[in-house]
Amino acid sequence: MIIASNRGPLRFERRADGKGFTSHLGAGGVATALGPLLEDAPEGTIWVASALTDDDRAAVRAGEARAAHMDLRLLDLDPQTARLHLDVVSNGVLWFLHHGLFDLARRPRFDRRFQEAWRGYEDVNRAFADTVCELASDGDVVLVQDYQLSLTPGYIRTTRPDLRVVHFTHTPFAGPNAIRVLPWDVATALCGSLSSVPCGFHATRWADCFVAATRQVLGADRATTAPFVASLGPDIEALTRTAESEAARAAARELDDLVGDRQLVLRIDRIDLSKNLLRGFAAYDLLLEEHREWRERVVFVAMVNPSRATLPEYRAYRNEVEQAVARVNDRWATSGWDPVVLDSRDDFHRSVAGLGRYDVLLVNPLNDGLNLVAKEGPLLNQRDGLVCLSTEAGAFEELGEAVIPVHPYDLVQTADALHTALTMPRDERVARAARLRDLAGARTNRDWLADLVKRAEAATMQ
Amino acid sequence: MIIASNRGPLRFERRADGKGFTSHLGAGGVATALGPLLEDAPEGTIWVASALTDDDRAAVRAGEARAAHMDLRLLDLDPQTARLHLDVVSNGVLWFLHHGLFDLARRPRFDRRFQEAWRGYEDVNRAFADTVCELASDGDVVLVQDYQLSLTPGYIRTTRPDLRVVHFTHTPFAGPNAIRVLPWDVATALCGSLSSVPCGFHATRWADCFVAATRQVLGADRATTAPFVASLGPDIEALTRTAESEAARAAARELDDLVGDRQLVLRIDRIDLSKNLLRGFAAYDLLLEEHREWRERVVFVAMVNPSRATLPEYRAYRNEVEQAVARVNDRWATSGWDPVVLDSRDDFHRSVAGLGRYDVLLVNPLNDGLNLVAKEGPLLNQRDGLVCLSTEAGAFEELGEAVIPVHPYDLVQTADALHTALTMPRDERVARAARLRDLAGARTNRDWLADLVKRAEAATMQ
Repeated sequence: MIIASNRGPLRFERRADGKGFTSHLGAGGVATALGPLLEDAPEGTIWVASALTDDDRAAVRAGEARAAHMDLRLLDLDPQTARLHLDVVSNGVLWFLHHGLFDLARRPRFDRRFQEAWRGYEDVNRAFADTVCELASDGDVVLVQDYQLSLTPGYIRTTRPDLRVVHFTHTPFAGPNAIRVLPWDVATALCGSLSSVPCGFHATRWADCFVAATRQVLGADRATTAPFVASLGPDIEALTRTAESEAARAAARELDDLVGDRQLVLRIDRIDLSKNLLRGFAAYDLLLEEHREWRERVVFVAMVNPSRATLPEYRAYRNEVEQAVARVNDRWATSGWDPVVLDSRDDFHRSVAGLGRYDVLLVNPLNDGLNLVAKEGPLLNQRDGLVCLSTEAGAFEELGEAVIPVHPYDLVQTADALHTALTMPRDERVARAARLRDLAGARTNRDWLADLVKRAEAATMQ
Repeated sequence: MIIASNRGPLRFERRADGKGFTSHLGAGGVATALGPLLEDAPEGTIWVASALTDDDRAAVRAGEARAAHMDLRLLDLDPQTARLHLDVVSNGVLWFLHHGLFDLARRPRFDRRFQEAWRGYEDVNRAFADTVCELASDGDVVLVQDYQLSLTPGYIRTTRPDLRVVHFTHTPFAGPNAIRVLPWDVATALCGSLSSVPCGFHATRWADCFVAATRQVLGADRATTAPFVASLGPDIEALTRTAESEAARAAARELDDLVGDRQLVLRIDRIDLSKNLLRGFAAYDLLLEEHREWRERVVFVAMVNPSRATLPEYRAYRNEVEQAVARVNDRWATSGWDPVVLDSRDDFHRSVAGLGRYDVLLVNPLNDGLNLVAKEGPLLNQRDGLVCLSTEAGAFEELGEAVIPVHPYDLVQTADALHTALTMPRDERVARAARLRDLAGARTNRDWLADLVKRAEAATMQ
């Protein structure tokens, strides 16, 4: 089995004494999804990923970019090409496209600079494909991950039709109107590559968008491989271990001190335009305005950590988020009560402590491939906490019946949802939390991986 | 027959001497579409519209808001309600939604103010329906126009199931993902009303979006009336009359002086975010950068007039447009040559003169219900001019084979399209212009109106 993902399972750091490298677990949804492979990968597993930092590249050159139980191959890509691939095309265009984040009157602008970046995207995707084709044995299963590697399946299929390739998209997928925003050749290449293999998505909705988009671009009569739906589930063992760690216990005590006997509304997100942080704070502001009974009785802890700071859109958004929090606090704070606590440390133990402790978890993205936090929360939570979940998150398809639905653009509805959650009678709350636990734990990350392998094995070899 | 449109065929102005009112032809696509009715409406035609200005309202109160050959009923609406209906909901939300113009990370925000505005939208739509129901005879045909009156068909159907109502949307229609941005009750009301009658669109694409959006909102099993496609055509007689007028001839001479023996690239648009003015100038800039042979040999006349100045988005966009023009001129102007001439007068004679005179007409909207200028241009043009037309304009479905296609987000492709048009050999140019004239003149506004009436007459009475 071969895994291909832009971000690998480990990142490497040069030791302070200069002798060798230490390795750390990678972060992000793909790392969670594939994490168990680090412990018990099948014999002969190969994982191909990019060397993302100078230290990663140094570790590759020193022959020390290794992982236990598998053959880890970090690609030592030209840093400028890697930047064009990741910052400009993957995160600057495809992420925005699939999440519907473009302010279309102004962006994107496909110019010569984009054409160069697209060649960088092609180069990196081809480098992944070349490495896979070089290392793969006859009929191997190849699992290609996410929007950074959309062209890799097509390149592999051309060179090695014997390999059994699947691609899995962890984001939403552009619908038939949105896909038309891409330059014609880009859209054709993307849809052509993906439609040559079984493609997986976390939710039916994104699989439907994918089918409609590829039809739009390639024509209704062009046969494409049918996509499949396989939602990711939490890594329950790892979560439980973390929750029982001393670091998580310490974070929980810190949170107890902060929250006291108030109710805790929690959100945990990267600071990303798709996460809808601004309307979350605006809805909370409306709640405090219209339901004065909650003033001083609730605290909203926003564990939101900065992300993609190389993109100006993200720096601007982060400023807006900080201003939105300041506005709510300026308006409602009293001595001894901050309505919103913005915590931008990236600390997994603190997050796990928060998930154990919330009364209400607010997850209100504009669009989200799945949103794993919405599943992790109910499994970790110790207080029969409720989840207010956007209908536009992939996880809503599975959790919908037990969450309180949130309309991400509707501030009045979102404030209502928070109020409903905060006032829910104990009986109903307990019943919902139990149902949520069942639904959220119905699938684990191992189930997801097994589904991918099964789909790949079923793929016809040509 | 009853027409219902927010903007009526005439606007009224109080005479300087205070004695009575003068009337002027209304502007905009709907006015063009329905213009012929002012000359030869069938006996008993009633036209219901809003009184849009103080003078309109004064004319209504004085009983002088009248038109020849028909019963004109201008509704004297509360100005604040009319503002909520038109500025906040129709132009501030529905226009943005149907054209995909929201910067979704930030807008829209459905708050209490929006809820109040939505009640204003309902009130105005109900006032139209009430007036129609009051005036209509048994089995009358009712033609309801555009996104400002989306709820009117549903209200009419409830009160007067005997009437044969059609609705026609002159804009694009939101797809199944975009429609989810609306608050749930708003989306349900909108789709419910429209799906209760035959709905018309200028292009198959928008009809398909409508079907997909209503399925998304109302459920796949809910039976809805099938939409129809009936594209608007130019009012050829009126155009010809205008082109032969002394005012148009004077404007043509003025343009001749301005352009001289250079080639003329022309655009004619309202300054609207959907029209993609910024990328049009950026593509022209790229053309001048990469093809120095066009410097001093082309002039780009942008007849673009300000619009909807009550909306801050439009004021901001207008500033950006002016800056974009200044940038191109700062970069390339020489003594005696301005690369771009920005003409923001709203002057129909000047527009008609421009359409007679262009070598290349640039029509590059992000999304456009039809774009009537793309059809009017070929019919008026005297120089075998070419049209560079966005694939995202409804008119592309009819004109596609004879235009030079434009990808509205792709600056490189748009610059290429302009270069192709400017360098096209005379023979091919003449042949294309001839084919364009045929396609553009294949339907007139009278054909469009006849189609609407036919669809209405075919509607089953219940």
